[in-house]
Amino acid sequence: MPALDLEGDLVTLLRALVDLESVSGNERDIAEAVQESLSSYDHLDVQRDGDLVMARTDLGRDDRIVIAGHLDTVPVADNLPSWTTGEGDELLIWGRGSCDMKGGVAVQLAAAARLQEPNRDITWIFYDNEEVAEEHNGLARVARNHPDWLTGSFAVLGEPSNAGIEGGCQGTLRVSVTIAGVAAHSARAWMGNNAIHDAASLLNRLATYEPRKVLVDGLTYREGLNAIKISGGIAGNVIPDRCTVEINYRFAPDKSADQAIAYLRDDVLAGFDLEVLDAVAGARPGLDQPAAAAFVAAVGAEPSAKFGWTDVARFAAAGIPAVNYGPGDPSLAHTREEWVSMTQIREMTEVLRGFLA
Amino acid sequence: MPALDLEGDLVTLLRALVDLESVSGNERDIAEAVQESLSSYDHLDVQRDGDLVMARTDLGRDDRIVIAGHLDTVPVADNLPSWTTGEGDELLIWGRGSCDMKGGVAVQLAAAARLQEPNRDITWIFYDNEEVAEEHNGLARVARNHPDWLTGSFAVLGEPSNAGIEGGCQGTLRVSVTIAGVAAHSARAWMGNNAIHDAASLLNRLATYEPRKVLVDGLTYREGLNAIKISGGIAGNVIPDRCTVEINYRFAPDKSADQAIAYLRDDVLAGFDLEVLDAVAGARPGLDQPAAAAFVAAVGAEPSAKFGWTDVARFAAAGIPAVNYGPGDPSLAHTREEWVSMTQIREMTEVLRGFLA
Repeated sequence: MPALDLEGDLVTLLRALVDLESVSGNERDIAEAVQESLSSYDHLDVQRDGDLVMARTDLGRDDRIVIAGHLDTVPVADNLPSWTTGEGDELLIWGRGSCDMKGGVAVQLAAAARLQEPNRDITWIFYDNEEVAEEHNGLARVARNHPDWLTGSFAVLGEPSNAGIEGGCQGTLRVSVTIAGVAAHSARAWMGNNAIHDAASLLNRLATYEPRKVLVDGLTYREGLNAIKISGGIAGNVIPDRCTVEINYRFAPDKSADQAIAYLRDDVLAGFDLEVLDAVAGARPGLDQPAAAAFVAAVGAEPSAKFGWTDVARFAAAGIPAVNYGPGDPSLAHTREEWVSMTQIREMTEVLRGFLA
Repeated sequence: MPALDLEGDLVTLLRALVDLESVSGNERDIAEAVQESLSSYDHLDVQRDGDLVMARTDLGRDDRIVIAGHLDTVPVADNLPSWTTGEGDELLIWGRGSCDMKGGVAVQLAAAARLQEPNRDITWIFYDNEEVAEEHNGLARVARNHPDWLTGSFAVLGEPSNAGIEGGCQGTLRVSVTIAGVAAHSARAWMGNNAIHDAASLLNRLATYEPRKVLVDGLTYREGLNAIKISGGIAGNVIPDRCTVEINYRFAPDKSADQAIAYLRDDVLAGFDLEVLDAVAGARPGLDQPAAAAFVAAVGAEPSAKFGWTDVARFAAAGIPAVNYGPGDPSLAHTREEWVSMTQIREMTEVLRGFLA
């Protein structure tokens, strides 16, 4: 396995990363290549935890920031090895992981190699298992195993955001509501009580709910409260005695997970019996921090709020304000046709240089 | 296989029938025993179609009636062989099929043997596969193969009715309504349109619908319109673009199946797109027919309307008014604890004698 050339052509580096297949759980090869290539730089202290690679400067700067990206991808779908279309400003790199998020990883690796005297100390994190269940997540694991690797005043997570800043992220929770009825033969429906009919009151509540728009640290978060699953009924001749509705609440980062649950239980869905299936808090954008302000200035465009939950919440949980910022159109993530443009790759390269050089 | 003794003790006959296991599809043994025992009577012309046995008198009476019962049962559930509890008026016969409907079959077989000079010609039908899908039903099959076996002015179906007359039966139909939405990531719900939320309007319609009560030939039928199944949603983070509701309509026999469908489509559920899954008409009680009136007089109690669909509708389709009348509590049918009382067995025996001797 040849080490990656971190100071050569960015397209070559990115394509080498894409061609190192690294579906979640299979990050060994790419992690070793990343570790080996970073280890040749004296300005970096490189360490490893499973298939997570951490590389940091230790220049005694007043400030330390964390820049992270995940090495894994969703399963390959006939979209490896990589290919390109167009040239110059039109050059696109295609293939599994190109958008989500080896484009960001390539820029981060190149910057880690080149920024040998950054104005802030930097902790670079390249981690495994972002695309799968929480229990496997490399960033969650390192927060348990090496909390000292996750210290800093600000963090950037290189998920695709079209090279715009998406601040923080919303929390998300799921609850299940089971409406109980009384079973009966459907030819004698009046002997029973139809649980599906009774679910109408819950659906009415959801359908008429006006989601909040919440200003947090200068960004507007737009919440959502939605039934995402419904099931009921067992046979064509039986009045159903049970109807279960699963509800997803996406909530702004002004609320903790417990506050969000209480809001549903005591307010929006009061009167219904909620079972909480899962709940994770979001992350405040923290754009009032000096390092964050400097990063916003380097990007030179208005930040927007991140609606979906991302690993920035893990930084928030560790006390570090964080933003999403990376090349690539997020709507292409996980599609077979994912690609990333060299224009955005270069843009991010310039932003990191402006922020850190 | 010894023939059944049709003129001996009724309890012995009934227990012999119950102990001849005859779960739908496995009626061969019981059909052969029935055929063999009936064939020894000169006043009966006995014929066979699959596991259906037909036995009829041909005395040139002005009137012919049909008396039918099914030989099959739902699956055995540790409730064979038969057993009894109590004595005299308290005697109960237990075991799979005792209630549904070998109690009625025992009375019919004994009457077929004993009523050698009935006042009306009688066609006795003992049939297979009543408890399973329409395509296997013996009565439906004989209507195709031997329509001449199903002629008469009136029919009695010996299904358990607590030895009371349940006239005709209601029709039943199922429709499916699929509410379409637009899928989106649940973190950006406003990009989509939640099909489960939109289903609220359909459920509201069903929940507030007041079922009709309809007088037909002197009996009051009580309709029912119910969601019997609902499903929607594919994942915890996707706004569902589809919610499907299955609806069962039980309708009085004043409507044909087509009229019932039109009533839903143009009236109750107007505005929704209905897919008809199945529809069968009910049967009018026909209690204004002379033979029916004589039967009601023999029973000596007020008839009531039958709400559930039964094979009497097959007689109605063949132009023969029909009623349900048999020993056994219908609410025990298909339960593991089914039983039939000798009191009702004797009552039906007397009714048939009064009606036909």
